[in-house]
Amino acid sequence: MLKIGVDAMGGDFAPEAAVKGAVMALEAIAPESRIVLFGDEARIRSVLDAEGCPADRFDIVATTEVIEMGDHPAKAFQAKSDSSITVGFGHLAKGAVDGFASAGSTGAMMVGSMYAVKPIEGVIRPTISSIVPTAAGRPALLLDVGLNVDCKPEVLAQYGLIGSIYAEAVLGIEKPRVAILNIGEEEAKGNAQTKAAHELLKSDSRIHFVGNVEGSYIFTGKVADVIVCDGFVGNTALKMAEGLYRINKALGGSNPFWEAMNYENVGGTPVLGINAPVVIGHGCSSPKAIRSMILTTEQCIRADLTKRLRQAFEN
Amino acid sequence: MLKIGVDAMGGDFAPEAAVKGAVMALEAIAPESRIVLFGDEARIRSVLDAEGCPADRFDIVATTEVIEMGDHPAKAFQAKSDSSITVGFGHLAKGAVDGFASAGSTGAMMVGSMYAVKPIEGVIRPTISSIVPTAAGRPALLLDVGLNVDCKPEVLAQYGLIGSIYAEAVLGIEKPRVAILNIGEEEAKGNAQTKAAHELLKSDSRIHFVGNVEGSYIFTGKVADVIVCDGFVGNTALKMAEGLYRINKALGGSNPFWEAMNYENVGGTPVLGINAPVVIGHGCSSPKAIRSMILTTEQCIRADLTKRLRQAFEN
Repeated sequence: MLKIGVDAMGGDFAPEAAVKGAVMALEAIAPESRIVLFGDEARIRSVLDAEGCPADRFDIVATTEVIEMGDHPAKAFQAKSDSSITVGFGHLAKGAVDGFASAGSTGAMMVGSMYAVKPIEGVIRPTISSIVPTAAGRPALLLDVGLNVDCKPEVLAQYGLIGSIYAEAVLGIEKPRVAILNIGEEEAKGNAQTKAAHELLKSDSRIHFVGNVEGSYIFTGKVADVIVCDGFVGNTALKMAEGLYRINKALGGSNPFWEAMNYENVGGTPVLGINAPVVIGHGCSSPKAIRSMILTTEQCIRADLTKRLRQAFEN
Repeated sequence: MLKIGVDAMGGDFAPEAAVKGAVMALEAIAPESRIVLFGDEARIRSVLDAEGCPADRFDIVATTEVIEMGDHPAKAFQAKSDSSITVGFGHLAKGAVDGFASAGSTGAMMVGSMYAVKPIEGVIRPTISSIVPTAAGRPALLLDVGLNVDCKPEVLAQYGLIGSIYAEAVLGIEKPRVAILNIGEEEAKGNAQTKAAHELLKSDSRIHFVGNVEGSYIFTGKVADVIVCDGFVGNTALKMAEGLYRINKALGGSNPFWEAMNYENVGGTPVLGINAPVVIGHGCSSPKAIRSMILTTEQCIRADLTKRLRQAFEN
């Protein structure tokens, strides 16, 4: 039995959207998977009732507090010891659940990732990543997308390995092509950071490094399956894509490529390089987005991602 | 009489595309503007003949050499002293033309900008910028888009002033809103570079600084008219937008917003912070793109951009 921990109180429309999303996910998860909801039990049961879903389809861990978006993440994580996020991470750390997902406070999710679950030994800096659609139809992984905005080359190089393992284990891409986001194809191009990281990535025999990828090719799928960049650039790229998606949609433009860009289909942001699967959802998550986030978490658990990452950093 | 210098030998489809574009520009430029073509006179005349355009509509400065894309920019600029770009910059430096535009070697254009025309005194680093469309219908200016990939905060801060002057003088935007591209709206967000640049921009009373702008808002037009970033991020953002435009178009998506993203309509990349108007076109420029590039150059000349920039940096 796999246990997927889900914060029922996370996100702007919680608990309604979170619980509805969990109900939607029931049909899609494996028979041996079970969703564990953390939150206000009465409210969770009331949403399940309204949805006509028997409460025994879930495990419920009753909590009494909620970390709000305005709370100081680190302080609230400690002070609100009975919050859904703090209790969820407690369960994750002791193995009572196999992964944890929330659309709540990103800051608190990071505090839990770094201090309750902790980085894998050997990982300099954990990272947050995003799955992006490509015109080729297969997904690509972009990392980091906002956690580490001042990255040393060594950190970027590790992201190549972390991303490669994720792409292979979770996305099912054999021998994933790893590239570093840069301003030109040629090896000598770039800023000081990417030039140094390029060298390190090139010498890492554990990954299939294909060199630089320019911004124009991120979404083509032609060059790379894993795209490494620092959190400043990755965050900007991701937000730019979201912004263009919204503008395009508002103008009536729509096609399968752009729909795949819709955050509802993306499935949240995996935190990688830590000792358990953690996925962070968009604050404004709809039930559909929560469903995607839960499925991403399940995939990470089923792929034994943490074990694979640990093995890679043992050497 | 304003003289707009145009490299007839620049770009993948020169001289045909360059000369055709110049012919197309004739209708759009002011009566007192005149285009000066630099290049192989016989070939220029032959294209004009084929277009049914009298050669006396242009000044022609005959040159015998061409700096190729594969040439080393700095060496070729010197060695090929009768190349269209080198001769063009010679004319620009001595005031025989009032601006110069080329879709040829970007490297050679930068060599000419830095060594023949030279930076304006007080400008730490000249910049290349791009006009981007917004959903609001008015253009925004993004800078730097690839020249300075490792920017000190002081350089970014100057880009705010340079961009503000361009937006006001050339784009006709009154009191342009200047923002710094960042990963969050809040002042404390960002990497070390943007945090420091934010402080400098905030204290510059000559510009209307509105704070941070996130990637999602670059193309909305809601936050800023001038968006400052380092050349690595700007180049990535620009190429990403171009890539998404192409994917969208290949999938049959089209609307006025995306068409404005088409490089053919953008009008090239002004080099800013130097002692004369210089505009660099896309290497694969079509005649329509060349026309846009020439019109941008004319706008810079007519707006007295160089004088305004010089005045701003005199203090």
